[in-house]
Amino acid sequence: MIVSTAAPDTLARTEELLLQPLADAVSALPRAVQPVVAHHLGWTGPNARVGETGGKAVRATLVLLSAEAAGGPVDVAICGAVAIEFVHNFSLLHDDVMDGDTERRHRPAAWTVFGEPLALLAGTSLVARAQALLASADANGPTAAACLEVAVQQLVAGQALDLSFERRDDVTVTDWAMMAEGKTAALLRASTTIGAMLAGARPPLVDALSTYARHLGIAYQAVDDLLGIWGSPALTGKPVGRDLWQFKKTLPVVAALATGNEAARHLTALLNEQTSEESDVARMTALIEANGGRDATEAEAARRVDRALAAIDVPDVPAAVAADLTALALFATARDR
Amino acid sequence: MIVSTAAPDTLARTEELLLQPLADAVSALPRAVQPVVAHHLGWTGPNARVGETGGKAVRATLVLLSAEAAGGPVDVAICGAVAIEFVHNFSLLHDDVMDGDTERRHRPAAWTVFGEPLALLAGTSLVARAQALLASADANGPTAAACLEVAVQQLVAGQALDLSFERRDDVTVTDWAMMAEGKTAALLRASTTIGAMLAGARPPLVDALSTYARHLGIAYQAVDDLLGIWGSPALTGKPVGRDLWQFKKTLPVVAALATGNEAARHLTALLNEQTSEESDVARMTALIEANGGRDATEAEAARRVDRALAAIDVPDVPAAVAADLTALALFATARDR
Repeated sequence: MIVSTAAPDTLARTEELLLQPLADAVSALPRAVQPVVAHHLGWTGPNARVGETGGKAVRATLVLLSAEAAGGPVDVAICGAVAIEFVHNFSLLHDDVMDGDTERRHRPAAWTVFGEPLALLAGTSLVARAQALLASADANGPTAAACLEVAVQQLVAGQALDLSFERRDDVTVTDWAMMAEGKTAALLRASTTIGAMLAGARPPLVDALSTYARHLGIAYQAVDDLLGIWGSPALTGKPVGRDLWQFKKTLPVVAALATGNEAARHLTALLNEQTSEESDVARMTALIEANGGRDATEAEAARRVDRALAAIDVPDVPAAVAADLTALALFATARDR
Repeated sequence: MIVSTAAPDTLARTEELLLQPLADAVSALPRAVQPVVAHHLGWTGPNARVGETGGKAVRATLVLLSAEAAGGPVDVAICGAVAIEFVHNFSLLHDDVMDGDTERRHRPAAWTVFGEPLALLAGTSLVARAQALLASADANGPTAAACLEVAVQQLVAGQALDLSFERRDDVTVTDWAMMAEGKTAALLRASTTIGAMLAGARPPLVDALSTYARHLGIAYQAVDDLLGIWGSPALTGKPVGRDLWQFKKTLPVVAALATGNEAARHLTALLNEQTSEESDVARMTALIEANGGRDATEAEAARRVDRALAAIDVPDVPAAVAADLTALALFATARDR
């Protein structure tokens, strides 16, 4: 059962620990892209929130907690946290261009302010810096750097799969899960693996944390899919039904179509029209709900959170860290986040 | 004096040495982007040229020759050559999206076939793989990987500068050279530095090769700028005057405007209209030529080639390699390339 929770203290600590290293890392980027990144992170421009790391730093927190789980001081993993946040923000910058989304975190998407080319260049600069940060941190061979590259490639593959779904009528729940593993879970897994490895963790701990992050990532995507249809626009920053206009194969849609019944055929026809009319969006939403798409997605999210928590309920994960990771998972998958 | 030359034998050798490693490296990318890269490299699709590495592999040849200059077998530098070609092709894939160019090497640009998102994802995948390839090759610390990241950031900065020029009337020849150092010379410098470092070169040789590559890169850009206005569309694959429609600050334009005379003001007015009318393009071309833009650019290219060749005319660079690098420089800056 997913419940709303307050932001865990670990997120506030990450903000505090990460702000300066993140600012330093941004100032090492080419001058031309620094304003783009600063805007994207919410440091400048409309509704700027100076003193925050941009977003909720869930991934950076995973890096730091994983280092702690391995018994290391969080300091050794700061570069990993910066690298992961850089890759995450690269993907957001590029996604907004690719999807034509004009808002991000209730603020104008970077490309709407700086143009598509500079937003793309800024993203590329972030991912290149992230890889180099880890390459230089890898004293004993390029393990963390290699791990980050795997995550970037899985991210690319997940994005490509998601794009291909828009033209397909036969996406299964298994296909969806494979997409979510790439698009969302890969970077969360890399967050835990890199944090743990930078602190010298051994395989059993790395595996436990990685399994936790994998299921958390899929749960996170399921909740995101729910919010994309039933979320309040005030919270999501997206217009109601945005995911439905584009016939995105989100889990509620995939699950509702999987029944193959009359309602599913009706839904497919409506979705194929790619309409953004309010009445059509309301009809699609009702059909998805009546056909079990919402229930199935909530169940999947809950099941994945359970599996994530089970993965860290092992002797290799110190109890205090497991408690923090549990709070983080509940927060990250809460429906009012 | 720049003369037309036949393709040096070293380019053919690079094709032979690189084809299999390049194919292997492409097959290690996410499946979804492999067709995009294969098309982009000319291996599949219209006018496919199976058995070629795509493009002329000038950069890969620089990597291999630099390794030889350091006394190493070329084998040690193959991964560097693949990495450099990957970064080069990433930049072409992204550039065509950013510039809206529909043709590349006389073939449909990848984004026109696969869509912008997949072309962007393929480029990102290439740059991430390139960095990881070098990170894993760096046995003694991440020097080659770090060098590649510097080149990617300089590339980003050069591209951003080039974009900013489109909105400026006051670009100087010095500004142009700074832009060319990033946009074009940075990756050539990295090619020589990475090749030499992978073969264990010492600083004097690395410096000589890097200086050669720097001037070669600026010469290359100057020749590219000449071809963008006076090149035959059959050779360049671009419509006549393409660079003029966009008011790109190529060197002939910058040099012609630098005079600040009546003709320069007339040219500025015409360029600001962003016209693609044949008669206007012809008038702009004539004004640039009459105002010395063409001569100045040819002189700059020749001067840079001379400086490139002077840089490798030192005892640290073995005579046989210097001869190959000389042939390569003359070929790469020939006006019928």
